[in-house]
Amino acid sequence: MAGLNATLGEECELAGIAMERATQALLQADLAIAEQVITDHEKITVLSADAEEQAFALLALQAPVAGDLRAIVSGFQIVADVDRMGALALHVAKVARRRHPAHALPEEVNGYFAEMGRLAVKMARAAREVLNSQDPTDAIQLREDDDAMDDLHRHLFTVLMDREWRHGVAAAVDVTLLGRYYERFADHAVLIGRRVVFQATGKTPEQFQEAEERLEDDYI
Amino acid sequence: MAGLNATLGEECELAGIAMERATQALLQADLAIAEQVITDHEKITVLSADAEEQAFALLALQAPVAGDLRAIVSGFQIVADVDRMGALALHVAKVARRRHPAHALPEEVNGYFAEMGRLAVKMARAAREVLNSQDPTDAIQLREDDDAMDDLHRHLFTVLMDREWRHGVAAAVDVTLLGRYYERFADHAVLIGRRVVFQATGKTPEQFQEAEERLEDDYI
Repeated sequence: MAGLNATLGEECELAGIAMERATQALLQADLAIAEQVITDHEKITVLSADAEEQAFALLALQAPVAGDLRAIVSGFQIVADVDRMGALALHVAKVARRRHPAHALPEEVNGYFAEMGRLAVKMARAAREVLNSQDPTDAIQLREDDDAMDDLHRHLFTVLMDREWRHGVAAAVDVTLLGRYYERFADHAVLIGRRVVFQATGKTPEQFQEAEERLEDDYI
Repeated sequence: MAGLNATLGEECELAGIAMERATQALLQADLAIAEQVITDHEKITVLSADAEEQAFALLALQAPVAGDLRAIVSGFQIVADVDRMGALALHVAKVARRRHPAHALPEEVNGYFAEMGRLAVKMARAAREVLNSQDPTDAIQLREDDDAMDDLHRHLFTVLMDREWRHGVAAAVDVTLLGRYYERFADHAVLIGRRVVFQATGKTPEQFQEAEERLEDDYI
């Protein structure tokens, strides 16, 4: 089981690195870095297949019960999430490549994407950490960075919708899709956090928090 | 196992109905229908939870082996796909509600969305059917409608990028996101088809097709 979660954690790390580089490629219109993300994507796909195989082996060979069963099933679901995170980083890199040598982003939104990139990378690392630690409280914390991501995403739309937007429709379409890729990347990291809570406690994050609060009340 | 797939099939049906109505709400700026999709979304969420419970019960109580194990694990993955299809239909309905009483879509792209809606609904129904029939050949066919969806999606972007676009940036942003919702809905239907191939044959669609072609060659 620890082996499966370690593979999933490694995959989160790679997805985070991919998003970090894709963001760099996007902000600096750097073709070489974009190409590297695109080439390296294969590694993420391989880890997804590895993780599924490990999970099947655990299910088939060890006839697991209750807690282990829950953890393995969550493992299958986490594969789908982290695989998607990798695909979203790949999408970002492809936009950077498609627009090169031009910048895909108008300069006025660079700051938003630098910050959304920073949050996305931070969340991928946090997902890796909670996969290893199985700490449900840390796993729930992923939601806070996601709230920050959602705020940025909302602000980005106000910039787009502003009458002062002078970069045309094509740039607006790119910014819209790119914004969505970062936001979905963060959503999947949050889902991984939720699934770790379930792996570790058998509860949804809501049930877990409620139980914790009841416990605190008992000690007051 | 048939019970689990029936629940998943029912959920596909509901996701298809949601997308059908959401498209109608979008094209006709019909607030009542949009609201209905939003209210009915709860039913899809409930079916997701039902399906996961059924899958856990099958895993835990029947200690399944090989084929059944594969089918149940695929069941968990299908839940995630169909749940997402429901969420994407909900997103479409919410855009229709947000823009009401205005139409979210400029009239010149109505035809694209009518057709993307028709394909999405057809694919949700096909996903339901292959979940019930477990026919791998039909399950692979879902890719063809997805190719048609991708074509429409690409054409939609040419309309958006055209210098003649006179509907402003806000409409372009809506059209971009809406187009993506339909395209992702179709992607998830294709994924369900892939997972049914795996449920039924233990092979990926690529492995299954290769084996079929070898079989045909043997008979020539």
